[in-house]
Amino acid sequence: MEQRSGATVGQSRASVTRLMVPTDANFMGNVFGGSVLAEVDRVAYITAMRHSKAQCVTASFDRADFIAPVHVGDVVDFDAELTFVGRTSMEVWVRVRAEAGSGGPSRPVLEALVTMVAVDADGRPVEVPPLLLESGEERRRFEEGRARMEARRRSRPQGGG
Amino acid sequence: MEQRSGATVGQSRASVTRLMVPTDANFMGNVFGGSVLAEVDRVAYITAMRHSKAQCVTASFDRADFIAPVHVGDVVDFDAELTFVGRTSMEVWVRVRAEAGSGGPSRPVLEALVTMVAVDADGRPVEVPPLLLESGEERRRFEEGRARMEARRRSRPQGGG
Amino acid sequence: MEQRSGATVGQSRASVTRLMVPTDANFMGNVFGGSVLAEVDRVAYITAMRHSKAQCVTASFDRADFIAPVHVGDVVDFDAELTFVGRTSMEVWVRVRAEAGSGGPSRPVLEALVTMVAVDADGRPVEVPPLLLESGEERRRFEEGRARMEARRRSRPQGGG
Amino acid sequence: MEQRSGATVGQSRASVTRLMVPTDANFMGNVFGGSVLAEVDRVAYITAMRHSKAQCVTASFDRADFIAPVHVGDVVDFDAELTFVGRTSMEVWVRVRAEAGSGGPSRPVLEALVTMVAVDADGRPVEVPPLLLESGEERRRFEEGRARMEARRRSRPQGGG
Amino acid sequence: MEQRSGATVGQSRASVTRLMVPTDANFMGNVFGGSVLAEVDRVAYITAMRHSKAQCVTASFDRADFIAPVHVGDVVDFDAELTFVGRTSMEVWVRVRAEAGSGGPSRPVLEALVTMVAVDADGRPVEVPPLLLESGEERRRFEEGRARMEARRRSRPQGGG
Amino acid sequence: MEQRSGATVGQSRASVTRLMVPTDANFMGNVFGGSVLAEVDRVAYITAMRHSKAQCVTASFDRADFIAPVHVGDVVDFDAELTFVGRTSMEVWVRVRAEAGSGGPSRPVLEALVTMVAVDADGRPVEVPPLLLESGEERRRFEEGRARMEARRRSRPQGGG
Repeated sequence: MEQRSGATVGQSRASVTRLMVPTDANFMGNVFGGSVLAEVDRVAYITAMRHSKAQCVTASFDRADFIAPVHVGDVVDFDAELTFVGRTSMEVWVRVRAEAGSGGPSRPVLEALVTMVAVDADGRPVEVPPLLLESGEERRRFEEGRARMEARRRSRPQGGG
Repeated sequence: MEQRSGATVGQSRASVTRLMVPTDANFMGNVFGGSVLAEVDRVAYITAMRHSKAQCVTASFDRADFIAPVHVGDVVDFDAELTFVGRTSMEVWVRVRAEAGSGGPSRPVLEALVTMVAVDADGRPVEVPPLLLESGEERRRFEEGRARMEARRRSRPQGGG
Repeated sequence: MEQRSGATVGQSRASVTRLMVPTDANFMGNVFGGSVLAEVDRVAYITAMRHSKAQCVTASFDRADFIAPVHVGDVVDFDAELTFVGRTSMEVWVRVRAEAGSGGPSRPVLEALVTMVAVDADGRPVEVPPLLLESGEERRRFEEGRARMEARRRSRPQGGG
Repeated sequence: MEQRSGATVGQSRASVTRLMVPTDANFMGNVFGGSVLAEVDRVAYITAMRHSKAQCVTASFDRADFIAPVHVGDVVDFDAELTFVGRTSMEVWVRVRAEAGSGGPSRPVLEALVTMVAVDADGRPVEVPPLLLESGEERRRFEEGRARMEARRRSRPQGGG
Repeated sequence: MEQRSGATVGQSRASVTRLMVPTDANFMGNVFGGSVLAEVDRVAYITAMRHSKAQCVTASFDRADFIAPVHVGDVVDFDAELTFVGRTSMEVWVRVRAEAGSGGPSRPVLEALVTMVAVDADGRPVEVPPLLLESGEERRRFEEGRARMEARRRSRPQGGG
Repeated sequence: MEQRSGATVGQSRASVTRLMVPTDANFMGNVFGGSVLAEVDRVAYITAMRHSKAQCVTASFDRADFIAPVHVGDVVDFDAELTFVGRTSMEVWVRVRAEAGSGGPSRPVLEALVTMVAVDADGRPVEVPPLLLESGEERRRFEEGRARMEARRRSRPQGGG
């Protein structure tokens, strides 16, 4: 069955490079953390939609630490790939790096783990294809993702993915 | 000294009510989780700025679970207040509730704990006034916030508030 | 009948706190009056929708004087409540106050009286629940609102709420 | 002196034609009144800036009645011209008309009288050139504008242009 | 037949005057060329929709040279009119001029030729009314437009208007 | 000299994946061509800034044909790389492909050649590092780009990069 035939990590990988403009920032030029998180959510959404061929909704964001600030004029890379896929939910790992437009080293800004759930037109969870793992590294990440998913289920306030 | 004289939880409380419009949503009317998180960050920023009388940057978002989806046309309430204040960092507790514009019960959507750091014009952390606690409930939350802050420091990838 | 059972002023009150960002302003940092009026309209819309449980359209804005300018970085409070409710139209009173993010006194910016009309899917006016008045102050405002509504009807260019 | 040499009504006239897109509207396709008023403010600002060659701030909006609703897909014309110019303030008359993108008659939506004040970099009012009147119609409007300005000054809550 | 009865160049002319705000610019105040092109597309869309009384899609942009830069605070005029109309496609000529808000001469920024195709709800091209030419100048432009359209067809990568 | 040491095509390559949302589209779900061109300009800007380590301004867009329409809900890839680098100007080649979020084949939408000029804080052109070519393909594209640049100079209305 085509829907169940699975897809690799690479097939749904998504990458966004953004220039941070004044709209994203307060008047001192510091980019709002929320602008970064909104972009993280969008790239995770694209990865989840590419894998599931379905609409998706965000179920959770794991803790996210801003390691370095982002400023207006920075060029920021958002790289998203799947780590774990359950029956209807997917864990997307997003790494964010920034560099000044005027040059200088690229610096890590944030890593985020976003859980997305594929849904139908009525918002009910739908099954997603399995994730085909192609390396030992991907298998290791998958097992870590499964453990996190189970931990989230136990501590989650209610319902969901 | 005025800067050290402290301020109560109520003095920096902030509240935003937002109508979710098509800009916030995909074409099936599901509001992006990132739009909700961006608003959470903004209201936390206002609370932190009101307390510190300084510019603030987001240091971290604790894990956030979307308990219920948000749709275009929903009216969403974001309520933010301080739980814990350290030397330069503040923990802001944001509760998000939604109700359909056409009526019906209000439902919880999300709770988030956002850590903000007050900074000067060069982005260096600056001291913030102490938080004056006025009830047993506020004191309990403060102690819980202090424990979380210490746990975050131990597990944080590097540096920060 | 539930639709006619009425609702108090407090049940539809809405409050928005906004940080003014560079998007709202010209390049000298003055916030456009139109950005403030757009937010006034949104909060009035939420109040009218909460009371009527229906879609609403703006019928008129009474004269609005900008008492003080607003700058990028200001935190602005918009507080909306109903003063008068007719058969299909509602008068919403919105008060706007601003304070610099870096502290300092809060200053009044604007007061606005917005008339909203509840409509069905075809844009035809629909009846709204009566407003339950709970204090002498609310009754006084209601009578003043009724007088303004009648004055608007006499001078209005054509049709409407 | 060049600054005092004056300019005609036609020299600062401004005209904007806008397509209303989903961003301007609620999810039933009704354009928010506030989106229309924000555009009215922008075109009035352009007219005032063209006349004064200075930054301007909005001092007041006279009462504005929405004669007809605006929908997503409508093409809306905003035409602005000066009616009265005082020492530092200008009254701008903005007429708004809409037509469905798919054809059909143009219908009046709104007329607004916006008072703008020219300001320097510190926000203090600065003098503006006189308005050169070229027709009896323009002279009649100027006198009506002067009468409105005096009425606004008497009833204005405080200070201003 | 009304649909075939034709319309003049003047009946679909559209004009937009825009103030460039910080949202349109990088942090040095240079307006992105893409912000200008997006506005060119919108005004061309309005002209094409006014002529065809139909939805339109952009088929091509001819080469466009930015003759002068645009800065935040500039007031920019976009003037659009039809030059050529084929069976389902229309060529719109858009001229862009800018002047500093604080005065100074108006300078040409860009000329663009945008080809729009009228489409039905399924995206299939639909016939548009003929263009009624009223002057020798309009007839000359029409013939030049026809020549360009034929050249585009020969060199176009595939399909279209 | 570091500035003159050159950089490869790969070092400034940039890639953006975007979900088209209702904000980008008219009310029938067709994405405005101008939204696509604005994103093309942004990704070309990032590539030019990465190569030059300087602010850049758009000098020209070559003719761009929309081969296929874009709809709300499509996931669109923008891939940018340098083809030619002159003394102060750079030609960026941007390829745009779209696929429906719900799956289906990826289809080409547009190819664009954008000329960017590196500028200093006063907007004057500054020299950019040479482009280090690493393959016969890159050398072929460079020569084609040089020929186009010379043709643009001959036909350009005035001045520029």
